[in-house]
Amino acid sequence: MATPGLIVAPLTPFTADLKVDETALQRQIDYVVEDCRATMVVAAGVETQEYTYLSLEQRKALIRRTIEFVDKRVPVMVGISHPSFRTAIELAHDAEKLGAAAVQLLAPLRPFAGPPNQADLIAYFEAIGRETKLPVTLYLNPGPGADVSIPDTIALAKLPCVQLIKESSRDLARVSRLIVEIDRADHAKYHTTMQMLLATLQLGGSGATMPPPGSEIARHVIDAFMRKDYERAAELQLQFALFPSKWMHRGLAPAMKAAMNLIGIPVGEPYPPYSPVSRDELTAMAAVLRNTVLAPRLTVAAAA
Amino acid sequence: MATPGLIVAPLTPFTADLKVDETALQRQIDYVVEDCRATMVVAAGVETQEYTYLSLEQRKALIRRTIEFVDKRVPVMVGISHPSFRTAIELAHDAEKLGAAAVQLLAPLRPFAGPPNQADLIAYFEAIGRETKLPVTLYLNPGPGADVSIPDTIALAKLPCVQLIKESSRDLARVSRLIVEIDRADHAKYHTTMQMLLATLQLGGSGATMPPPGSEIARHVIDAFMRKDYERAAELQLQFALFPSKWMHRGLAPAMKAAMNLIGIPVGEPYPPYSPVSRDELTAMAAVLRNTVLAPRLTVAAAA
Amino acid sequence: MATPGLIVAPLTPFTADLKVDETALQRQIDYVVEDCRATMVVAAGVETQEYTYLSLEQRKALIRRTIEFVDKRVPVMVGISHPSFRTAIELAHDAEKLGAAAVQLLAPLRPFAGPPNQADLIAYFEAIGRETKLPVTLYLNPGPGADVSIPDTIALAKLPCVQLIKESSRDLARVSRLIVEIDRADHAKYHTTMQMLLATLQLGGSGATMPPPGSEIARHVIDAFMRKDYERAAELQLQFALFPSKWMHRGLAPAMKAAMNLIGIPVGEPYPPYSPVSRDELTAMAAVLRNTVLAPRLTVAAAA
Amino acid sequence: MATPGLIVAPLTPFTADLKVDETALQRQIDYVVEDCRATMVVAAGVETQEYTYLSLEQRKALIRRTIEFVDKRVPVMVGISHPSFRTAIELAHDAEKLGAAAVQLLAPLRPFAGPPNQADLIAYFEAIGRETKLPVTLYLNPGPGADVSIPDTIALAKLPCVQLIKESSRDLARVSRLIVEIDRADHAKYHTTMQMLLATLQLGGSGATMPPPGSEIARHVIDAFMRKDYERAAELQLQFALFPSKWMHRGLAPAMKAAMNLIGIPVGEPYPPYSPVSRDELTAMAAVLRNTVLAPRLTVAAAA
Repeated sequence: MATPGLIVAPLTPFTADLKVDETALQRQIDYVVEDCRATMVVAAGVETQEYTYLSLEQRKALIRRTIEFVDKRVPVMVGISHPSFRTAIELAHDAEKLGAAAVQLLAPLRPFAGPPNQADLIAYFEAIGRETKLPVTLYLNPGPGADVSIPDTIALAKLPCVQLIKESSRDLARVSRLIVEIDRADHAKYHTTMQMLLATLQLGGSGATMPPPGSEIARHVIDAFMRKDYERAAELQLQFALFPSKWMHRGLAPAMKAAMNLIGIPVGEPYPPYSPVSRDELTAMAAVLRNTVLAPRLTVAAAA
Repeated sequence: MATPGLIVAPLTPFTADLKVDETALQRQIDYVVEDCRATMVVAAGVETQEYTYLSLEQRKALIRRTIEFVDKRVPVMVGISHPSFRTAIELAHDAEKLGAAAVQLLAPLRPFAGPPNQADLIAYFEAIGRETKLPVTLYLNPGPGADVSIPDTIALAKLPCVQLIKESSRDLARVSRLIVEIDRADHAKYHTTMQMLLATLQLGGSGATMPPPGSEIARHVIDAFMRKDYERAAELQLQFALFPSKWMHRGLAPAMKAAMNLIGIPVGEPYPPYSPVSRDELTAMAAVLRNTVLAPRLTVAAAA
Repeated sequence: MATPGLIVAPLTPFTADLKVDETALQRQIDYVVEDCRATMVVAAGVETQEYTYLSLEQRKALIRRTIEFVDKRVPVMVGISHPSFRTAIELAHDAEKLGAAAVQLLAPLRPFAGPPNQADLIAYFEAIGRETKLPVTLYLNPGPGADVSIPDTIALAKLPCVQLIKESSRDLARVSRLIVEIDRADHAKYHTTMQMLLATLQLGGSGATMPPPGSEIARHVIDAFMRKDYERAAELQLQFALFPSKWMHRGLAPAMKAAMNLIGIPVGEPYPPYSPVSRDELTAMAAVLRNTVLAPRLTVAAAA
Repeated sequence: MATPGLIVAPLTPFTADLKVDETALQRQIDYVVEDCRATMVVAAGVETQEYTYLSLEQRKALIRRTIEFVDKRVPVMVGISHPSFRTAIELAHDAEKLGAAAVQLLAPLRPFAGPPNQADLIAYFEAIGRETKLPVTLYLNPGPGADVSIPDTIALAKLPCVQLIKESSRDLARVSRLIVEIDRADHAKYHTTMQMLLATLQLGGSGATMPPPGSEIARHVIDAFMRKDYERAAELQLQFALFPSKWMHRGLAPAMKAAMNLIGIPVGEPYPPYSPVSRDELTAMAAVLRNTVLAPRLTVAAAA
């Protein structure tokens, strides 16, 4: 069995004047690489990274800094999603120059109305795939992106340029089927997310992508799975039952930033106008996290 | 660990003149009880059983026959869902007289417009719960029934009369959380379905409910899990990746009826006007099922 | 121009022991026929009539009583929607014997999973249409029924048996197009609902169907439109802007029952477990209705 | 009665190398101002303008050019929607300097997950409103933007900075109610779109916003309405029944670009990878448009 992928997308820390806080970013990346043992790091690629708030120049700077801070310890995948395929290609060319290992591209909504059809999606990925030598990750995230059907996902996975998939769905019927029809059929490496991790590994999927500190719990799940301690893997997987679900009314970025702040690796507040997790919610989150592998970090952070 | 529940809802075989085919029903129930080792059988409780097509008298007859054919080998749960709580109570009283072990009740839509609120749902289950001594199974099936939120599901699970839940969602984020907040919190036994079975068992849920012949695959998954052969359990779980997903455009009842016909336990066609699985689709389904634990039955059926 | 249709579906009044209150029903039907000048009355046909709560025998009795109380003053259309087409046909045969002018049939969900396709819908309407000489009204009500696409609605409208359509959507893009492609193309008479009435008349649709007392406002809209007093028609149409929208969180049946009680034609409470409009909500509704053509009735009712 | 608003958003013509085609833009703006008698022009504000494909610099250039080409003949409203409120404010400041009359701002999705709540929406509009003296148009467009509930829309309309609303819904129940609770209550001027125009005017709404050449049909509807020729207004409104609905599977931008090309005011093809209307679809569209007020332009264009 191949080593499972643990692809981690660091949160984007902002200073009080809404610039990227590079010190906090560097510290977080060290945690992601050293403590979570990410197999790959994502630079400005998923919405949880709040990259859409940045100007194009700021986004490019964030990508550069992420690559610098990772410092070749693990490969970096660069987010190139943009409504204009021209800009996406520009970002892909930058990624090549910076030594990125892959690019990540959201399956887009039709910006002007209605869902994209399969021809739209294929044309979009081909337009970009033919302009870069880097492998492309198909990023599926309905809402900001399109809700891609099972047949359309399989069609995209068969494109030679698409070598990896980031699936955001928690629908295990969909995920089971796509693991078989995409990953086990060798079209692309299929990655899911936190709540889906153990089920994905057991069914033969390639791994998961997520933000920290979920990635530290995920590391423990993967390690237990690899040493065939399946009962421990299941116990660890259960740590994703309440976290982050109970705080998702705030959104994933605020929930994960709150958790990072609790474990002593501060990443600041969500970009305005979105609200941080409240004081009471934070107390409840700390109580839940004290029953997870993150407990020792909470204790140290609380003592500090 | 408690023995996992494998609650099976037999399909309803119809004769050419659209009456219940009792001979086919009896044979199927023997399969469900003896071969699948169902821990409980459902009588006229889920939409896949096509019970809504029946008149109230036909439905009562189907319930009686199911209980007779099970013949006390395992407990029977009787479906009592009806838009009028008066009729639901009447069905519950019948179930008591027939020796049923439980009743199953769909969380209903507001028939006249819009989704029910928590007060509607609580009032509905309390109205019925106070009229019967049998434990009530909360049946969640958005579409014919309401799409019940996580907080509303927890509130319903806390009612003393609700002792078991049948969850139709394949959303593992929802299911993980409800296993913790309902089943592990001892409010009710939480049961999911085919694609969710192994994940449910690992996280501490109570089991699953499904139609045959999915129930035979599920029996193998449960047995492997109970003997702690987790790798085999995962291999078996994978048999639910393509089946029945690839035939769900026909609907669950037509897909499962087709599979039963293929394995030599005929249950006829779907109730009109819905179409059976086509000849080509049937060939493709047979090819998939030959890679499952159902393979020996297909061979025998094909030879016959 | 043909006389616009005002098809009215009386609410179903229940006694304290949940039987149909025939005295209240008769009084209401007199109001609907004499005061609202309904062009047709619906018997047990739409969800707002709470007919799904009744046993089949009770439903048949409600149909009989409705026809008796209308007493040939206007034609009656009988609701025959039922998950089993056999039962629907039985109801259609009864309707013929009772002298009904038409039958109404909900475009059904697939009961066992997923949306129906066009073949399912055509097969369902053909199965029933060939068994009755009465014209069939296609009833579109997503939720309890299917969400039928524009092309599928046109295909159903072209069936010879389908001669009238009851559209529940408030989507004026859909309605505009279907008026042209169905009503003006002479496939079927297309009827919408309260908020859509004036727009429907102006675009060439056939009228609207609704419960009382919306039907009294609608009568005024239609009369103004017919005498070409378009400014008055628009003023009257505006009386549907807040009513019943502001009380739809309770559902259409509770909102309309509350309005009937306010204007002195009592029809009781919603069938349990659904809640009636609260006392405060009732006060607010009375304030709104005092700015409508219903005002004189409120004054009389309040004085009584 | 105030003069109804006809707010027009020109399409964005692209050259073969995907730059804005300024010659085509200028000609189109002359058509919009002189022939359609737009009461206001939108610069880079709605998704149909394909502005999201542009870099920020290109977008700013498009705004400048639009204002230049309008040349003070009518006021211009500048689109400032951007995931970062910082960038939105920057665009608002530019708009002030360029002499814009208003800014338009999309009610945004939460970029990182889930729908925004009322506090998020209020905070977002206040953050921008306090930084500009220009009146703000609340732009409602579920999909790229949030699906804002009736109560949340009313709350936003009550903000002092929000003086105009662009509603994309075709839900006449929603629109009727909001005209009363927002426009007639003097919170903001409420504008709808093509299919809703006459109904909006009759109920007391402020007008509509749309792309050309729908705006030419709309001009005729408004003129007929203003001279109280309500029957002619209804006939004209019917010209929006098939157009653009029948071509919306391509999306609004491709459909409207096709119509502009047909009437001899060419605006090129949709930005890739989205497909233009096919040759057969174009023939069918021409046949429909020949039954509208656009017919003389089609004849001239076909002869050219």
